[in-house]
Amino acid sequence: MVVGTKSPEPRTASAVVAELDRFFSRKIRDAETRGIWLAQLWESAHRCARGGKLVRPRIFLSMVEALRAGTVSSSNPDAVRDARVHETRIATALELLHYSFLLHDDVIDGDLVRRGEPNLIGVLAAAPPDPSFAGAPTAPLSDAQQRRLHWARSSAVLLGNLLLSEVHQIFASLETDEASRSRLLELLDTAITDSVAGEQLDVGLCDGIIPSELGTILEMCRLKTGTYTFELPLRAAAVVAGAPAELEAVLARTGRLLGLAFQLQDDLLSVFGDPVLHGKDAFSDIREGKETALVSYARRTSSWARIAPSLGRETLDEADARSVAAELEACGARAFVEEAIEETLTRIHREAGPDGDASVPEAVSAVVLGIAVELRGRTS
Amino acid sequence: MVVGTKSPEPRTASAVVAELDRFFSRKIRDAETRGIWLAQLWESAHRCARGGKLVRPRIFLSMVEALRAGTVSSSNPDAVRDARVHETRIATALELLHYSFLLHDDVIDGDLVRRGEPNLIGVLAAAPPDPSFAGAPTAPLSDAQQRRLHWARSSAVLLGNLLLSEVHQIFASLETDEASRSRLLELLDTAITDSVAGEQLDVGLCDGIIPSELGTILEMCRLKTGTYTFELPLRAAAVVAGAPAELEAVLARTGRLLGLAFQLQDDLLSVFGDPVLHGKDAFSDIREGKETALVSYARRTSSWARIAPSLGRETLDEADARSVAAELEACGARAFVEEAIEETLTRIHREAGPDGDASVPEAVSAVVLGIAVELRGRTS
Repeated sequence: MVVGTKSPEPRTASAVVAELDRFFSRKIRDAETRGIWLAQLWESAHRCARGGKLVRPRIFLSMVEALRAGTVSSSNPDAVRDARVHETRIATALELLHYSFLLHDDVIDGDLVRRGEPNLIGVLAAAPPDPSFAGAPTAPLSDAQQRRLHWARSSAVLLGNLLLSEVHQIFASLETDEASRSRLLELLDTAITDSVAGEQLDVGLCDGIIPSELGTILEMCRLKTGTYTFELPLRAAAVVAGAPAELEAVLARTGRLLGLAFQLQDDLLSVFGDPVLHGKDAFSDIREGKETALVSYARRTSSWARIAPSLGRETLDEADARSVAAELEACGARAFVEEAIEETLTRIHREAGPDGDASVPEAVSAVVLGIAVELRGRTS
Repeated sequence: MVVGTKSPEPRTASAVVAELDRFFSRKIRDAETRGIWLAQLWESAHRCARGGKLVRPRIFLSMVEALRAGTVSSSNPDAVRDARVHETRIATALELLHYSFLLHDDVIDGDLVRRGEPNLIGVLAAAPPDPSFAGAPTAPLSDAQQRRLHWARSSAVLLGNLLLSEVHQIFASLETDEASRSRLLELLDTAITDSVAGEQLDVGLCDGIIPSELGTILEMCRLKTGTYTFELPLRAAAVVAGAPAELEAVLARTGRLLGLAFQLQDDLLSVFGDPVLHGKDAFSDIREGKETALVSYARRTSSWARIAPSLGRETLDEADARSVAAELEACGARAFVEEAIEETLTRIHREAGPDGDASVPEAVSAVVLGIAVELRGRTS
């Protein structure tokens, strides 16, 4: 998904890329005062972080722009420039938060691939490059390989912590009034707590600790990805643009719905999507035994006996995985999730569409519906 | 080590305990809005966090008091109370930071015991209680045990992230002037970065990725524990008490030296100390193959051939571990590290003792030397 390809203009997105580059360069330089190893970690992180789709920065920047549309913009060029710097910093922090979560997710899930390339753990574990790390290991790891993998995973935990810290530092040092800063910090806190709660549900469902129920799975989707991907950027935009409280509340509800639709799409893509496009391990959800809405539906059908033995089998080959996908389609799970997405998108239209709440300005509505349209059609 | 048993008065330390209780209760309540699982995690965390020695809060509070001694204290009882609330919040945040680091350290080291009891991971992994989790597992884990352990470790990563976030939130929302808050945030950032850099060196040395050299090991000691345990509390006290820059610089140097001495003592305790007193797995450093100053010295002696095969052997029994300890003593490694500690304590005296830099007030000197004395004699 490339949210907001039309707005904001490419110049604004490239400002985030430039700010990210400056951030990593600064971190590499700072790390050098503590020896080469931390500097090398930041360098690897910089390389792995490149090429991200900047989903969260784009949503934030599009919404700031939409909320400001129609209001008299400052004629003072210094003020305009300062505002842009401020917004770029927040947008960059949102991307760093995402990257921090990805790193810890990959540690927890044991993933070594992201966007079709070795992720940071894969890179650190496999130097010199070792193809056995590109997917599920086929043979038991040697002692030396296990040590490298431990080093790589530990490094990812540690770098994730540094990134999380930096996001807080960026928010805490924003040059804005105390009230706005404190609101933004609160939104950040909520988003982090939701993500942790969602990831905990995800792990507990996978590990068979938490009973698999559709309600829990949908709550997990919303918490794990929805809040920080949609609700946080949209509400942060409302704070930055000084939007009225009712509009922020609409954006909060819309953000939660977008988050749900996004995660449901993600579950579909992992099973039915093209791995070349979505960039993750093909069928990784099936191999890891993820409890998704697809699986929850399938449990209640007669196909379950044929699906269950393959779920969570790390050594599953492609043909077996494809037959699980076919079963998930035949039993109606795919259609069920597709309907759930459509229903969620309809609710989004009701919240923020042109026929919805009259208090939503047209430009704001356009951004929300643009995201919804891209969600429906996304392949990555 | 119970730093500052005399000062600050017990009332102040108990204020931190009370604030920690309030913190965890609030977190449990907040988590309940996201379902029972996160609330249960916070409850387990609260139970496991109890009984800490509050080393960092005590250092901070003792130093604030020492820096204020001799200055005219406010006669306004409201101002005094506000200052105490402010200081208690910082002290509490320092303890939470410590707890966040412990959690992630335990994940990285695979530890299941802390202070002689199952740590958070041990508790979560072993419900219902399972003695096989109380130490190194003796038999391969069943699939169900592996899932519980994965759930437990993932939960510890996630809770560590929440605690780290909360520390930033507490610092960012301190009710003080902007300059002080920004100085405190900067000190926090430095301490976290140092700890990560030190932990990375620790892991890299253990996993054989980073070459074992005494210089690297000493740098690791300083970075991993020294900055956040001593330099951060001492310098934060300087900021809070409005101490002059030169005095803060003395405290920074002293903090680094205290950190080095503390970590060297820790290494000695793990091998030669009484596990009933220090509370960690007996001989865990030897079993985990930690690269300590002891090991670095032993490498260069003729005893090394007898020590090397036992290092990093998870299944090492107590008799074997005791014979490694005896070798480390016989080859002179213990004496070498004890001398290094004495030398470091001498340098601390030079920095902050009564015959040292004349600009160090007597009360400040007394606190620093009190910490040094406790360090020398510590058993836990």
